[in-house]
Amino acid sequence: MATDLSDRGGVQARVVDELGQLLSLVAGRKAATRADLAQLTGLARSTVSQRVDLLLRGGLLTDLGDGPSTGGRRPLLLAVNPDLGVVLGADIGATHCRLGLADLTGNITAEMAERLEISAGPDEVLGRVVEGFRQLLADAGRRPDDVRSIGIGVPGPVEFASGTVVQPPIMPGWDGLAVPEKFRDHFPGKVLVDNDVNLMALGEYRGRGSQDEDLLFVKVSTGIGCGIISQGTVHRGADGAAGDIGHVHVADQDDTLCSCGNNGCLEAVSSGSAVARRLRAQGLPTATARDVVRLAQGGDPLAVRAVRVAGEQIGAVLASLVNFYNPSRIVVGGALAELRDDLLAGIRGVVYQRALPLATRRLTIEAAALGPKAGVLGAVTLAAQYARSPEAMAQFLEDRGAVQ
Amino acid sequence: MATDLSDRGGVQARVVDELGQLLSLVAGRKAATRADLAQLTGLARSTVSQRVDLLLRGGLLTDLGDGPSTGGRRPLLLAVNPDLGVVLGADIGATHCRLGLADLTGNITAEMAERLEISAGPDEVLGRVVEGFRQLLADAGRRPDDVRSIGIGVPGPVEFASGTVVQPPIMPGWDGLAVPEKFRDHFPGKVLVDNDVNLMALGEYRGRGSQDEDLLFVKVSTGIGCGIISQGTVHRGADGAAGDIGHVHVADQDDTLCSCGNNGCLEAVSSGSAVARRLRAQGLPTATARDVVRLAQGGDPLAVRAVRVAGEQIGAVLASLVNFYNPSRIVVGGALAELRDDLLAGIRGVVYQRALPLATRRLTIEAAALGPKAGVLGAVTLAAQYARSPEAMAQFLEDRGAVQ
Repeated sequence: MATDLSDRGGVQARVVDELGQLLSLVAGRKAATRADLAQLTGLARSTVSQRVDLLLRGGLLTDLGDGPSTGGRRPLLLAVNPDLGVVLGADIGATHCRLGLADLTGNITAEMAERLEISAGPDEVLGRVVEGFRQLLADAGRRPDDVRSIGIGVPGPVEFASGTVVQPPIMPGWDGLAVPEKFRDHFPGKVLVDNDVNLMALGEYRGRGSQDEDLLFVKVSTGIGCGIISQGTVHRGADGAAGDIGHVHVADQDDTLCSCGNNGCLEAVSSGSAVARRLRAQGLPTATARDVVRLAQGGDPLAVRAVRVAGEQIGAVLASLVNFYNPSRIVVGGALAELRDDLLAGIRGVVYQRALPLATRRLTIEAAALGPKAGVLGAVTLAAQYARSPEAMAQFLEDRGAVQ
Repeated sequence: MATDLSDRGGVQARVVDELGQLLSLVAGRKAATRADLAQLTGLARSTVSQRVDLLLRGGLLTDLGDGPSTGGRRPLLLAVNPDLGVVLGADIGATHCRLGLADLTGNITAEMAERLEISAGPDEVLGRVVEGFRQLLADAGRRPDDVRSIGIGVPGPVEFASGTVVQPPIMPGWDGLAVPEKFRDHFPGKVLVDNDVNLMALGEYRGRGSQDEDLLFVKVSTGIGCGIISQGTVHRGADGAAGDIGHVHVADQDDTLCSCGNNGCLEAVSSGSAVARRLRAQGLPTATARDVVRLAQGGDPLAVRAVRVAGEQIGAVLASLVNFYNPSRIVVGGALAELRDDLLAGIRGVVYQRALPLATRRLTIEAAALGPKAGVLGAVTLAAQYARSPEAMAQFLEDRGAVQ
């Protein structure tokens, strides 16, 4: 039996949508048997069996054999066929890039990292990303056509709907660039572009087993940013600009010019580069956030004190956000978060003192668990979430033209 | 044919869930015909017809007669039977109370308002609310048993899951009170309790035709609070404490003690009562926020200036929240919002100056449209959203025991 899926007008459209929904549930590990699928979709058991048979014959699902018995006949366990494709993810930072290849459940099977200056401009940087993706695919015995979706994180504001970089403070040459265009000629599948900190938040959320519905991820490194997880998904806001706490105004008396053109921004006062600059003015050899970490880890009292004060300033902003947003967990990452005792103690002290008791009684503030791998895990998680959505699955089936 | 619904173990449970889902779609005005219902649920057309016949015979749905033809036979239009019940809502403020009776779509059909001091304590206040509800029902020819759900707004923090008031600054005698208990002996149906500002946000959102997915409602009155609409629903956070911006720390040099026990809170510096106190110290006759409004409307330059400064201080906090949350609309309500030119100009000036360009390019900041009716509209909206949820509808059918 071959089902022609080219007619999206009537009955066939509904069948394709149902097939997409079933594939999505199996790929997302929400269902492993026909009984699970019938329960979750509300479709009749006979309809589910018919559709699953189509997907098995079409090579989209595979049969893993008998599952555990629940009294009657042992149910057959289903999984998505690896042939269904892969997703790619890239975490592009200010000075580094990390790439990953993952299956449709978002499990990374291969990755690579390299130094890469964002200031080299989009052609150079994205050219290297495309090259890296090709190498990951080749090493895994995959073709570019196997790519169902791509997630890209960049260190600046992004209009999520179009994947366009908008007025980035530290990405010269990228303003107005629609990032997906640069991948169009190389890979099929939708390209989703997001702020790197949003993707780190998604990565930490997934890495923690997705227990916290409302989580804030705060990155304290060269700059300061925040990713917001709301009910399990990234909150991006009306323009995709949500989470930009680095430019919250904190100090009227500080006349340091911020990269955004204002004075007294949190980032200009308390980021890794701001602390490095302040210590340099006191005669210490601190060119970057990394130098601050090294000195503070070595016990230099001026460096330790400066990091602690930065933590308190960041904590004052977070106290406001805890009152406003009432998250259950704040995860602090980025280079300066390696200084747990100093940075986190500063943050915790101010948050628990200033935020309302009701909003902090179950609040956990802790250091990031995944380190530099959070961003790429978030990138493939975003790509896999999209690739296994019922809409994307239905589109994929339609593009194939027929399930035979 | 009578379907006994007392067995929730097997097939019947699924039927009840399906009936609840169908009722929910009709009550929410998402479906008006059998064809709509089949499309939205994915159920077979024959199953939908069978279920709808059950609901019609059980008196839960009614038939409105022929709808417009789409080519073939004219479809029959369905509506929920008014007998399905009503919802109640109460907006309890610091010095007032407004009650409403609405149908399951959330349309208010009767309301009443009275002065009521929250400081009279929960027995007195909630006793008056119960009495008012009884009167609204009697006037409409309804019995207490017709009540499917109740929404209650109170001027303090609430743990939403249990409806418990938690450490309210301006509600003496209410701390730790589980509000739903006080209604248990009088009406059936779930009682949902929320912060009054959350419900004003929901009311303004509904009143605007629900166009803005991410909306902030800021109330500037005796105190200052904020309600957050995220993707069309109230964002309450991990403890139901979200939106409490009145206790964001804004002024280190201001030693006015806030009701929360800290110094320098936004509410202690920029609320209606804070402005009244400051003007009083300058010799003006301002006992309350209302007096400030009256003086400023009369053109008193000191009052106008003080309101403008309060707007700027509130704007500084909102600028941070715009960077963090990136809403598409901020609605400003409460007594001081009647001074549009002064309060809103102060807020707008600072938000558009300090927040990032990307986060403000489509941002609208405007005065509330519903005035004192926003809270009660939000209360019945919350109650109606719950009452027509598939779960609540299924529970209602189960409680009835049988659909005959």
